[in-house]
Amino acid sequence: MKGVLATLAPEARVVDISHEVPPQDVLRAGLVWRASVPYFPRGSIHVAVVDPGVGGRRRIAAFEARGSLFLAPDNGLIGYLFPARAIRRAVHVSRREFFLETVSATFHGRDIFAPVAARLARGLPLEALGPALESYEREALPRPRRRRVELGGKRYLEESGCIIYVDRFGNAATNLIPARCFRLRELRLGGRRFTRLGRTYADGKPGEPVLLVGSTGHLEVAVNRGSAATTMGLKLGDGVLALWARK
Amino acid sequence: MKGVLATLAPEARVVDISHEVPPQDVLRAGLVWRASVPYFPRGSIHVAVVDPGVGGRRRIAAFEARGSLFLAPDNGLIGYLFPARAIRRAVHVSRREFFLETVSATFHGRDIFAPVAARLARGLPLEALGPALESYEREALPRPRRRRVELGGKRYLEESGCIIYVDRFGNAATNLIPARCFRLRELRLGGRRFTRLGRTYADGKPGEPVLLVGSTGHLEVAVNRGSAATTMGLKLGDGVLALWARK
Amino acid sequence: MKGVLATLAPEARVVDISHEVPPQDVLRAGLVWRASVPYFPRGSIHVAVVDPGVGGRRRIAAFEARGSLFLAPDNGLIGYLFPARAIRRAVHVSRREFFLETVSATFHGRDIFAPVAARLARGLPLEALGPALESYEREALPRPRRRRVELGGKRYLEESGCIIYVDRFGNAATNLIPARCFRLRELRLGGRRFTRLGRTYADGKPGEPVLLVGSTGHLEVAVNRGSAATTMGLKLGDGVLALWARK
Repeated sequence: MKGVLATLAPEARVVDISHEVPPQDVLRAGLVWRASVPYFPRGSIHVAVVDPGVGGRRRIAAFEARGSLFLAPDNGLIGYLFPARAIRRAVHVSRREFFLETVSATFHGRDIFAPVAARLARGLPLEALGPALESYEREALPRPRRRRVELGGKRYLEESGCIIYVDRFGNAATNLIPARCFRLRELRLGGRRFTRLGRTYADGKPGEPVLLVGSTGHLEVAVNRGSAATTMGLKLGDGVLALWARK
Repeated sequence: MKGVLATLAPEARVVDISHEVPPQDVLRAGLVWRASVPYFPRGSIHVAVVDPGVGGRRRIAAFEARGSLFLAPDNGLIGYLFPARAIRRAVHVSRREFFLETVSATFHGRDIFAPVAARLARGLPLEALGPALESYEREALPRPRRRRVELGGKRYLEESGCIIYVDRFGNAATNLIPARCFRLRELRLGGRRFTRLGRTYADGKPGEPVLLVGSTGHLEVAVNRGSAATTMGLKLGDGVLALWARK
Repeated sequence: MKGVLATLAPEARVVDISHEVPPQDVLRAGLVWRASVPYFPRGSIHVAVVDPGVGGRRRIAAFEARGSLFLAPDNGLIGYLFPARAIRRAVHVSRREFFLETVSATFHGRDIFAPVAARLARGLPLEALGPALESYEREALPRPRRRRVELGGKRYLEESGCIIYVDRFGNAATNLIPARCFRLRELRLGGRRFTRLGRTYADGKPGEPVLLVGSTGHLEVAVNRGSAATTMGLKLGDGVLALWARK
């Protein structure tokens, strides 16, 4: 891909976001995109090639949103980044004259994504890539379920969610995002009960799990100078139950 | 190496091809080079430092081929890229005035390859680096053995080869490259028999091995949304036997 | 971090030194910095975010030394690079107007280090970042213990140290650095006794451990075309005992 970009758009600045997304893990790729895209300048061209369906019938899509362009398989990735209303244009990337001359069945990153990104970098308008997409996949994070509960005469919001991400430090992120108007009463996860929201990893004693709001805005559990995943035996998909009181 | 390049050729654009070649694995490095070099612009300077013999008696070589330059230990790497006739010039990199002032015995990448690449990027002609190399190592991919066989009164070409590469997705590539004028009758590998050539990874049911032509042109076996290496218990060097019928 | 740099200092050239430092391993980060910083041009801005104390009370420091700038947590990292006298200026990075508007408690790399590095790249003077630091952490490599011993009527210098680094090739580096005026008599490590200093990895027979001076100047043990750590069962912190004779 770098070779194709250097050939077709030698003046473009190429930044690697991550090569550590496990093969075919769309959720993980979506979270990485979510965590990085907002920090790049407007006018960037973001390319994601996480593509369990390569060579199959899945389409390649290009989007315009918030002044930047996005190129990705039509597999729901874009749904992790933006609500539908933020997407100004969506096209089906299908005009073969912008691909490499020979398109392999197995490596569209090199043969389609890279040359198309290079043309966009050189000013080709999005519409030239193919017809408008009328609908596209909008997979997104699993949403927590919510219900109102009464405990000891008081009313609470109960949220049940799950662990959606374990990073290389062993921090485990949930799909729960604290709302401004609620205060945490308790959170149960991996056999433990948290009643306090820490502010930083260093808030816990070494070896002790801390619950906090991670850099993506999600509730996560970490162990100061250790791995929460190992210490608490956590893994992707584990359930979490939170009780919120209205402030 | 990046520091030396930034110091001696600050205007050069540096692209990392791979840091994932296992230590001293010349075959793997050759395949990575084969898969990437053709996609870079003419005039590129390609540097490979996979060097079991560092500090020993192996020489460092520089080559010109197809309008680009190549810098590598004289350990046969170049043989994976080009036939001998494509190589226009070959020199023994030996003029110490183009190296760093102090050359360690263990890190020639930093002390020799990087400064020499930087000088080439700034326009130093290849010949300045040292005398012409009259002969050099030309290790290459292991070649499949071929013989004609007769089965049920029909004639076939039988090829016996091996697995030369297992990538991080668990796809296993062989040293067999389909010729235009032959049609696959069967291929035996890891206790399985394939009679059909798939076109894409998605051609198989999930969990089911598919035989196809990979992005490097070699026959490879993959498992849709899984790892062929794990599912079929494949590893480097495993034998493969193919039977081809003339079209 | 790359996104913030691309936004605030689009003309800056960004070079990744390493993403392979294990979480919170200040010693490893120090060795990587030590091995790479001297090869970068004067005027570089070096950023290290290895930060067990993120969000806690540790400060962020900026240093000027040998014509370059250094940005790091005040956790002793700088002590691996320079003696105190080489550091011309040290400031406490505390002026929030140079940070991102929202500073998370967990990802200072993105919210503080990257924007501050970008401002420095655009010419902001070091002093603008905050008040001078009067003292700062100066952790450094564990120092070997030395004593004079007499053996068979001769005098030797005995050094006892430890393994401080095992690289991905399985080479194990010690904290011993040979002095010009001494000659090695013997070195004991992992149940073996070395009496000779090899010059290169290739000096040993395949599979045979070699003792040599590595690219950072430290004594290290390597196995030609193999892993010393595996062959000899070595790990971080293992003791090493050397006997030196005055030349």
